[in-house]
Amino acid sequence: MIGRSEIDPNNSLRFTGHHSYFERTDIMPKVIHLGFLGCGNIGGGVYHLLTEMHEEILKRENIDIRIKSALVKSIAEARSDVPKDIMTEKADEVLSDPDIDIICEFMGGEQPAAAFMQKALENGKTVVTANKMALALNWHKLQAAAVEHHAGLYYEASVGGVIPVIRSLTVSLNADDIDQVMGIVNGTTNYILTQMSQQGRSYSDVLAEAQKLGLAEPDPTADVEGFDAAYKLSILSSIAFHTRVTYEKIHREGITGISPDDIAYGREMGYTLKLLAIGKRSDNFIEVRVHPTFLPSDHPLARVDGSLNAIYIHGKYCQDMMLQGRGAGDKPTASAICGDILYAANHLGTPIVPSFANTAEPDPSMFFTDNWRCRYFVRLDAADTQGVLGSVAGAFSGKSISIASLLQRPSKVSGRAQIILITHEANEHALKEAVSSLNPDLVKVENIIRVEN
Amino acid sequence: MIGRSEIDPNNSLRFTGHHSYFERTDIMPKVIHLGFLGCGNIGGGVYHLLTEMHEEILKRENIDIRIKSALVKSIAEARSDVPKDIMTEKADEVLSDPDIDIICEFMGGEQPAAAFMQKALENGKTVVTANKMALALNWHKLQAAAVEHHAGLYYEASVGGVIPVIRSLTVSLNADDIDQVMGIVNGTTNYILTQMSQQGRSYSDVLAEAQKLGLAEPDPTADVEGFDAAYKLSILSSIAFHTRVTYEKIHREGITGISPDDIAYGREMGYTLKLLAIGKRSDNFIEVRVHPTFLPSDHPLARVDGSLNAIYIHGKYCQDMMLQGRGAGDKPTASAICGDILYAANHLGTPIVPSFANTAEPDPSMFFTDNWRCRYFVRLDAADTQGVLGSVAGAFSGKSISIASLLQRPSKVSGRAQIILITHEANEHALKEAVSSLNPDLVKVENIIRVEN
Repeated sequence: MIGRSEIDPNNSLRFTGHHSYFERTDIMPKVIHLGFLGCGNIGGGVYHLLTEMHEEILKRENIDIRIKSALVKSIAEARSDVPKDIMTEKADEVLSDPDIDIICEFMGGEQPAAAFMQKALENGKTVVTANKMALALNWHKLQAAAVEHHAGLYYEASVGGVIPVIRSLTVSLNADDIDQVMGIVNGTTNYILTQMSQQGRSYSDVLAEAQKLGLAEPDPTADVEGFDAAYKLSILSSIAFHTRVTYEKIHREGITGISPDDIAYGREMGYTLKLLAIGKRSDNFIEVRVHPTFLPSDHPLARVDGSLNAIYIHGKYCQDMMLQGRGAGDKPTASAICGDILYAANHLGTPIVPSFANTAEPDPSMFFTDNWRCRYFVRLDAADTQGVLGSVAGAFSGKSISIASLLQRPSKVSGRAQIILITHEANEHALKEAVSSLNPDLVKVENIIRVEN
Repeated sequence: MIGRSEIDPNNSLRFTGHHSYFERTDIMPKVIHLGFLGCGNIGGGVYHLLTEMHEEILKRENIDIRIKSALVKSIAEARSDVPKDIMTEKADEVLSDPDIDIICEFMGGEQPAAAFMQKALENGKTVVTANKMALALNWHKLQAAAVEHHAGLYYEASVGGVIPVIRSLTVSLNADDIDQVMGIVNGTTNYILTQMSQQGRSYSDVLAEAQKLGLAEPDPTADVEGFDAAYKLSILSSIAFHTRVTYEKIHREGITGISPDDIAYGREMGYTLKLLAIGKRSDNFIEVRVHPTFLPSDHPLARVDGSLNAIYIHGKYCQDMMLQGRGAGDKPTASAICGDILYAANHLGTPIVPSFANTAEPDPSMFFTDNWRCRYFVRLDAADTQGVLGSVAGAFSGKSISIASLLQRPSKVSGRAQIILITHEANEHALKEAVSSLNPDLVKVENIIRVEN
């Protein structure tokens, strides 16, 4: 067994990097004190992992991790089984404790989480967080504080749960030229769409069930309207493209307008519906968008079902790659956070920050386009009279959009027909103009859904 | 643009870790000199990536990478378009050049690659390699030299090509308790099995085609007999389980005995055939095996086709995860190698080595079992007479093995039948005893293939 006597934490620079078995027996473990902000499900999960794996982490990394204190709203009402003697109701007892090396933020929501993280960084403490909202909206300020005070800021669990996508992009793929990220990054909407697809049920029906099962919040807006995915895409695309992609630049549409008919007709034409967070870059143009998307049913992302998350990456050198895993849950999230804690502990003297100008506004040399090119699924409810199909075709060809496949089916309403078409690649603006030019007396637009390959 | 004047390489410890845009303008770039061992496809790919991405890497990492020399067999006969003026035929000019910080080994094969890497490490140089064979067979010696001489040893590209599985396991998942890795790690055999599955063609037919297309070697033994996958599993399972899994401990079977009938009957029963590298750990027991395996056709690994690689990981906290990407090709391999080069450059003063005793023999407290439990697909050619099915069932139940599903079909040979059964979970030894107890006058065993979930 390895000796575990404490050493002067100031001496910790000797221990940057992992240590081999051969060296370890000669070197005292590095003691790292953690402070938690929040101690609910995720905090409890991290506490349990670090307790259960304490000896093993000591053996693997020569790091002796100790949880010194945890900020909670009310010690009396704390539901977690974390020992009450480490709990405090005073933020400053965590943020300003000179013993604490790393602050782990588990509060969720933008404030006061962001302000607390800011304070921790200003106190020279490294911060680990899974809070995509607080990070996406305050990243530039947090990064500036981290740089100024030589502190680390790590957030692997903020995108894709346990999937190591942040580290893969910032470390493993950092010599590559990434031009596309495309992710299923919200488990709630993926669960809802999967159930709608597999069972032909309505959105509201499946949402109500998901709420009962605890898979959707009582107020589901953040998930179903794509806000959560947009925060994550802001982080993911900034890192992938080495430039600041602010949340405001992201085109965002949720899944509330999706009907089982869209899904069924899409499937018939060989496509599966997912809420995707999409980032693409070419030279100085960036497009970032969160919306329901049809994917060919044999696309690797199309097969990622239920509450799984997955991120597809394309780059000039790596070509196509996909990482999938659990996007939520206390254990997977704890695994990602503890990976960050060890990484932070190993780089305390040499913190790692993103390699781009993370400013309040994006780099002015980058252009964000809302006139991207993709394919489109358009579902129309049309009068079942001679000439309608011709007028539809004319509206699209008038904007130089060619139709790749078309399906006409009798509608449930007599005298009407469902026309579903999938276009070849077209510009967003042209598509919208084509659709607006349809005669509203003959054709009603039921839905427009983008299609990716 | 950022200034690019050279600094004293001895000053490089100031630059461990990435640097932010804010700091970068004030700090001179860190100059890193590389030496290549070998300069064929992979070396050429790395050369091109580093040339094309030079300015971008400087901007991202503040590292100015320079390729100083490349060892080749014959400068006159070198086919690569790497400039001849950096080529040398003398190994020592690369291995002992005091300017060189990082040696990149692209020779392939065990020797002299392993001896050269050993020499480089002894000279205090960090080594980056994609050579699974040289690494798997000499890892303990190379690691000992790395530790003794404070050098780094990195090998992301040795398993799964560009898939960041080594770094994900050693860094991101280093607080987790991984109990299973299961990978498609050989593109040649995956291509052959995919073609056999999709087209019903014979092994020898598809192999000949793959050889023509350059997807299989003229002597395909290393791939088709599972040697390549076994080297990779030795590395992967050692890292996943934090203990030395030597190559000799791996049970290895190739794909040469697979017939289109096996694949067709398996598919009919809902399974897809893959050559898998499987590692499982429970307490002190480890099982490591490379063999053709049936997976349920909806398993994420079952859908990884052609020359793609993928690694499925299961852990106590992360639960199930899968990483997939290009396992070969000059560009994807170059991406992984250059990721390692940057990582190595950022940790020159603080090299990272695996956190376990990497010795010539495995840790004696770990037990390697060849009596694992799994399900089995057994294909029999039986006399089509009364009582045969009963005797088959009896042979299995006599060893307490229950049959989960069974298919009987007329054979092409009159008076014979094909009997295909899939068992519930059983021990390897019991299964083999059950099969040996079949009456050879009535039943011929056509194939036994393991089934994983």
